[in-house]
Parts: sequence; C-alpha cells; structure tokens
Amino acid sequence: MAGSRHALPVTRSEDFSGWYQAVITGADLAENSTIRGCMVIKPYGFAVWELMQKILDDKFKEHGHVNAYFPMFIPIDLFEKEAEHVAGFAKEMAIVTHHRVEQIDGKLVPSSPLEIPLAVRPTSELIIGESMARWITSYRDLPLLINQWCNVVRWEMRTRMFLRTTEFLWQEGHTAHETEEEARAEATLMHDVYRWFICDVLKMFGIPGEKPAYDKFAGAVDTYTIESMMQDGKALQSATSHYLGQNFSKAVNMVFQDRDGNLRNAYTTSWGISTRIIGGLIMSHSDDDGLNLPSAVAPYHVVIVPIIRDQAARSDVMEYCESIKSELRHTTRVLVDNKDAPPQNKKWDYVRKGVPLILEIGQKEVDNDVVCVTRRTTLAKESMGRSEFISSIHDLIAQHDTTLQQRCEESCKRRVNDSVKTIDEMVEFFETHGGGFVKAKFDPSVTDVSVLDKIAVSVRCIPTRQSHTSGKCIITGADTDVDAIFAKSY
Amino acid sequence: MAGSRHALPVTRSEDFSGWYQAVITGADLAENSTIRGCMVIKPYGFAVWELMQKILDDKFKEHGHVNAYFPMFIPIDLFEKEAEHVAGFAKEMAIVTHHRVEQIDGKLVPSSPLEIPLAVRPTSELIIGESMARWITSYRDLPLLINQWCNVVRWEMRTRMFLRTTEFLWQEGHTAHETEEEARAEATLMHDVYRWFICDVLKMFGIPGEKPAYDKFAGAVDTYTIESMMQDGKALQSATSHYLGQNFSKAVNMVFQDRDGNLRNAYTTSWGISTRIIGGLIMSHSDDDGLNLPSAVAPYHVVIVPIIRDQAARSDVMEYCESIKSELRHTTRVLVDNKDAPPQNKKWDYVRKGVPLILEIGQKEVDNDVVCVTRRTTLAKESMGRSEFISSIHDLIAQHDTTLQQRCEESCKRRVNDSVKTIDEMVEFFETHGGGFVKAKFDPSVTDVSVLDKIAVSVRCIPTRQSHTSGKCIITGADTDVDAIFAKSY
Repeated sequence: MAGSRHALPVTRSEDFSGWYQAVITGADLAENSTIRGCMVIKPYGFAVWELMQKILDDKFKEHGHVNAYFPMFIPIDLFEKEAEHVAGFAKEMAIVTHHRVEQIDGKLVPSSPLEIPLAVRPTSELIIGESMARWITSYRDLPLLINQWCNVVRWEMRTRMFLRTTEFLWQEGHTAHETEEEARAEATLMHDVYRWFICDVLKMFGIPGEKPAYDKFAGAVDTYTIESMMQDGKALQSATSHYLGQNFSKAVNMVFQDRDGNLRNAYTTSWGISTRIIGGLIMSHSDDDGLNLPSAVAPYHVVIVPIIRDQAARSDVMEYCESIKSELRHTTRVLVDNKDAPPQNKKWDYVRKGVPLILEIGQKEVDNDVVCVTRRTTLAKESMGRSEFISSIHDLIAQHDTTLQQRCEESCKRRVNDSVKTIDEMVEFFETHGGGFVKAKFDPSVTDVSVLDKIAVSVRCIPTRQSHTSGKCIITGADTDVDAIFAKSY
Repeated sequence: MAGSRHALPVTRSEDFSGWYQAVITGADLAENSTIRGCMVIKPYGFAVWELMQKILDDKFKEHGHVNAYFPMFIPIDLFEKEAEHVAGFAKEMAIVTHHRVEQIDGKLVPSSPLEIPLAVRPTSELIIGESMARWITSYRDLPLLINQWCNVVRWEMRTRMFLRTTEFLWQEGHTAHETEEEARAEATLMHDVYRWFICDVLKMFGIPGEKPAYDKFAGAVDTYTIESMMQDGKALQSATSHYLGQNFSKAVNMVFQDRDGNLRNAYTTSWGISTRIIGGLIMSHSDDDGLNLPSAVAPYHVVIVPIIRDQAARSDVMEYCESIKSELRHTTRVLVDNKDAPPQNKKWDYVRKGVPLILEIGQKEVDNDVVCVTRRTTLAKESMGRSEFISSIHDLIAQHDTTLQQRCEESCKRRVNDSVKTIDEMVEFFETHGGGFVKAKFDPSVTDVSVLDKIAVSVRCIPTRQSHTSGKCIITGADTDVDAIFAKSY
C-alpha cells in the first residue's frame, strides 16, 4: 500500500522516527501536550493501556499481590538514606517547593515555601519501604506483596512519546521477604511474568536476562530485564525486576523478628512496567500503513463499516451489520461504525488503528449473505460466508496473532548475530546493518565500557539462557563463558 | 458489644472523631504517612476503592464516556485564563519550581529552576480543556465525553484521613457539547449517576440538589451535589457535577463550526467523586465494633474461620471449609482464613473489617453438616444447615444490604427537621441536637451568609425535589418558595 493515499505519510525505511510519530498520530493514540515532555494519552491509546493493566493486574493478583496507594510526594531528605539510589535519580526529579500562588501585578507567582521540599516520586522504593517497615514486625507478616498503579515523574531533557516522557504511568511492585532465597525467587518470578506478557501476550520479541553490573537499577543488587528488538534493530528495555537485597530494607530500617527470635532486615524486590511498552509495541508490529495490535490489547477485534450506496438500502445494511455484531459481541470486542463519514476513509482509519479484522458491508454482502473482510496483517480482502466468518472468528483472530508473532520473531531472530568476536567487527556490524543484536562473550565484572559508549552501543543483558561455551570477553579479551547481548538502544 | 474487649477502643457517642480513626485503624484501611497531609491507602482500603472504581467506570462507559490521561503538571500561567477558577485554587496548590536536586554539604537541595513553575493539578478543567480545544473543530466532533482516573493535590492545612488529604484519588469527567441544553442534560445525568452510586450502591443517605450561588465550584455556572448525612449529623458533600457554560470553553478557546457554518464556543461540564467517599461510607454505616460495608464494595462477602481444637480434626475441618468456599466462589467473594492465629481474634478482625457474613467452622459444624454464621449488621450468631446457607447466600447478602440501608436512612430521615423557621430556632436546633439537617426556606440569590458562618452552618444544597410551598427566607425574610438544606459539615 506504500505510496497510496492511505498509507502513512512516511515509511519505516524513509525515516523510522518520523514513521513512529506518524503511526501514533494515524492511530490517534497520543499527542504532545503544551507542557514540556508531558504527553496526552488519547482515548484509543488509553484503551490499549487499560487492557494491558487488566491482564497484568489479574496476573499479579493470581500470584498473591495486592494493590495499595502511597504518597506521590517524597521529602527530599528521605533520599539521603540510600546514596546509590539518589545518585541515580537526583538529576531528574521534579521538586515541589511552595504550596500556593499569589497574584502580583496580574502574574501568578509561587508563595508559601515548604520547610522540606518534596520530590514527585521517580519511583517509590523509599516511600513504600518506609510504610512496609511499619507493617512488618514478625516473620509472620512476610512475605508482603504490594503493587501500585500510578504516575511517576523523571525529568527528561529529550523526550519521545511513550518511550521517554517526563510523566508516565506504570505499576511498581514492592515485596519484602524473610530470606534472600525467597526474595530472589520473587524477582525471578516477576521477571518471568514480564517475559510472558511481552512475548506471549504482546507477541513481541524479547530476550530475558540480567543487566550487567554497571547498568543496574540505582540501589539494586541485581536487575533483570526483557530486551526487545524494534524494527530498526534497536533494543528497548521493556520491563525490569530488581532483587534489592537488604539495601533499601536497611535504609528504611525494615526489621522483623525471625523464627529464632532475632531481629533481622527483610530482603526486598521491586519490579515495574510502564506506558513505555506501548512505544515498544508500536515499533514491534506496526507497518507502513499504521498500527498493528495483538488481539489481547486491541480495543476492537472487529470493526464493521456499513456501505450505504443509496438510502433505500440503509435499513437492510444496518440490520445486517447489527446482527453480525450481536452474534460476535459476547466473545469479541466489536464495533459497528455508523458515523456519518465516507466508508473508504473509515476503513483506512481502522487500518491505521490496527484493528485485526475490518468488515465492509454493503447491499451486495446482504444479498449474498457474505462479509467482505480485510485482514489487517496482510491487507488482503476476501469474501466469506457470513456464518463461516462468525463460526471461524476465533481462528481468524488466532491467525492474526500468529502472523504478528511469527513476522516479528523471524525478522528479529535474523538480526541477532553471534559471529562478531572483536570490537572492530562490532563497529563494522552496526555500520553495515544500522541495528540488530550482537551476541558475544562478556566478562560480567567489567564496569568500564567506554569503548562501547564511543560507538553508542551498550550491554543490553546477560541472557538467562546461556550457551556455556568458552571464549574471550569482547572488551577485555579475558577468558569467559558468559554470553551478552550488545545493541544500540532507546 | 460495646465494652467488650473486642469492640473499638472508643465509641461513637464518646468521641465521634476518635471513633472514626479507630474504625479506619481497626479495619486496616489506611494510615497517615510521614508526609504532611498525605495518607497511605492500605490494601484493604484500596480493595474497596477498586470495587468503587469498577462500578463507576462501567457506568460511565455505558453512558458513552471514554478514559484518557492528561499531564499532572499545569503551568501556572494557564490559571491566569480563568479568574474565578484561580481564585478558588490559588491558596492550595503544590508548585514545582525545580527539576533536580544537588548534594551540598551532604544535604540535598533543589537546583535547576524552571522558567515557568508548574502546579500539580488540583483539578483539570484547564489542561483537559486545552486538549479538547485541539480535538474539536466541527459539531461532528461533539459531544466529546472524557473521563480520567488520577491523583490530585490540594494543599490542606487541617487534614483527616479520606475526608481531607493533600493528595487524593478521584475521577474527573470532562465533556463538551454543541448546545447549552445538551451540556445541562449531561451535568444532570451525571448528578443522577452519583445519586444512584451513593444511595443505591453504597446504601448511604443522600439529598441531591444544587449548590447555592455562593458555594459553586470555582468557575462553574451551576454545581450539583449529593449531600449525605453522617452519623454525627454533619453533612458530607459526596460528589459534584458542574455545568460550566462557556466559561472554560472561552478561557481555552474551545471553538467549533456549528451546523450553520458559524464558529461557536462549546458548552462544557465536569464531574467528580473521590476517595473522600470512603470516609463518607465509614461514617454512614459503621458501628462501635467497626466498619460495615455494603456488599457491592465489600472485598469479601463471606470469610470462613476454621476452628481447629485438636490437630487430628484439622484436615476434616479444612476440607469442609474449602468445600463451602468452592460452592460460593463463583457468585460471591469468599475467603478461608487459614492463617496461624487464634480463631476468636480472626473473627473480631473481620467484624472490624465489616465482612457481611463470618462463618466459624469447627468439628461440631462438620459433624452436623451446619455452619455457624455471624451477621455483621447485628452480630447475631446462628447455626444453619450447610446447604441451606449456600442456597440462601444471595438472600443473606441482600438482607445485609437492606439492613444497612434502612438503618442509615431511618436514622438520617429522623434528623431532617422542617419546622425551623428562624435563625434563632436554627441556633437552638443545632445546640440541642449537635447535628442534623434543617430544611428551611432560602432565597437562592443571597450571597451574604455571615449569619450562618457565625454558627458554623452552611447551605448544603437546594434539593432537586422541592415542596413548592411559599414562605420566607430564613436569612433575609424575603418571600420565596425555595427549600434549602442547612447543616454543619465536613
């Protein structure tokens, strides 16, 4: 469809970043606001987020987590308690310093300064930890499994819709455990929940693994990540799970009486996924005609566009459309679009919105008891018996999901290279291919990665699944059997 | 139960405000945080809020509203556009002035000042209006029906959990319409949705009506409210719906081309309900033994407490408990509490948490195929055949709801007085009864209510249902047929 008047104004190959914006605009997902770095998530984009929330929330609850809500404001002196943590966030915190405004010469200015300024939460380990420390007195209170859905703020200098915004929405899980072993098991479990969500639900490509020491979450002992590959070959950190050891527990004095009557610090974890994943979803599956959505997070599985050529046919066509809807509505999300607009425009609106199956229904379809269905993945248009369509709806949706997943996985896997052995070869690889993942040997104790910084590449993760072959670290040349993933990233 | 070791440490009649705190603590709903005026909503309290959210969200969507998300930060100069609005909120806004912190002599201090300070939203008419103005070009784009679930901040000097906190959670609906008539109909519709939620779902007492001119929302043309009566006779404004006319539409230049091709300003509404309603719920139904919850928002309808007198009986009792649970779980929210704690303590925990039906199951119940059930509303304990209990579960829950509603309604109605005719009589009424509602004549054009301020009474609303009898305004003595509700309030 590229080049037709319906495709997006720009293709992936012409300008990937312009294309990304065009997909968002074309699908009406979000827009920039007048506030620097903050976006507006429009109703269609928010519907995708609501579906994601429901799937994750149900899964968290299945695993025994309960939701709660903690203050958004954190007194800045609380950050002084965890040195690594504050070092990681100091440069990007919005700070509240006053609690009213006054009109002076017709202009509003802040007044009533606060004694202790308040940070708007960039993450909540300290403030939630402080509450948990009050709630825990004995091993009987453990594990404590808390989750929070909320907004957070990290002041960003260069922002991009969904991927990097000053304010964003996320969930943050915070748990406390009796032993290191249990806390580690929790961090691993939630890492796997995210792998399931990203790879199995969203049909994205993702490599689960551990972050290298130099790129852990500020204050964590270990950080686990899912590294997804976008269509330009860059990596996107899709979700992270942290084993925090006793670092935060000590900072907030989270102490409990253990089974032997001794006082000990609890072991904690935290884990989160944000609206950033919507950006990852867009860059995984969309094409030059717009968004593509896996069925689990598609606000509509089927949209029916009535085509009324003459007004006499209107009631016939509308009745036929509504009857299809009523047969589908209990098992799928279906919409009849009866807005007053040209049907061709409507069809292409839903192509850009990534609706899996789009039906065009006119008098001809009514007369022949058929539907004209366009599959979003291929844009192939076919005529199908009405009852056949209805009885095979689940297969059609499953085929849609399979197509998305296979297309994404095949194209990503082709771009994972495991023959690069030196930094020079890595430079050449990225110069030739632009993006892609390099799987090479890496000594995980390395912290000086300036040689990678120079070529704007980073260690994305040490994959959970290791080859256990021996080799030499691509940076230091030291013997190591550890595989790591190297890539350019968002 | 008052006086027993299980009742709350303080009764309603001894100290209403202390009792309110004790109900919250006893049910583990929430706690104060270390941040001034901010509370932590604990898992049990948040579960109540989640149930409320789901009920309201479904209802809003039924009426065609869609959710979206807008920036939390509002540049303070945007407030300059609506004079009344800023006057209403200027004294209670948290202001972000810096976007990083720096460590100086080991202490963190704000750095990198912003050019234009940002208010943390106290409400979002202006920021959402600005987006809507971009989205609307023609009458075809109307009505635009948006809702947002989020946190808001109003800096409060005197705070009280749920009722008045610096940060709170709410939903705010914002809609734009072609005509005044349609916008007024929307404000009225949502007013009625709130009446349904508060009176029919939450079983609270509420008088729907309009706010007097002097107490409208800052910037509104008309404000509609539900005024609930608490057990101390004070009024709580439970939810409000505003007809905003073209005030905000003009402030943000929300213009559309009408059916005749002319440019016109849209008419807007806004409406909201917050976590404050949980405070209202507590003060409507709870008693000296703790919380009482209507079934719609009770995290558990039934809790089963196993009573294991000797370990040999454990598996019998547990199996019996689990079998009851599995028969109930598809239609009710049911928990078997198998924690390691004394059964009597557990039972009283669930009394304080307001669980409608509490079962105590020991060997005797197993042997006789019965259940021992305590109804939360009466604390009456009775033995009932197991299958009878299961088959009548819906009736038992319905009886619970009916009892709560009748008890609340009867006690509130008794405290609505319509024989007070003068301010002196009003003074005497409140001196004698402490609280209660006075229904008296009021000239709605009155704005000087200093005579009421002196006795800490306010006009709560002009009820939607009017008697249309003639009389004299209780403040000015002028002829009027308008009834109003006067009360002390939260």
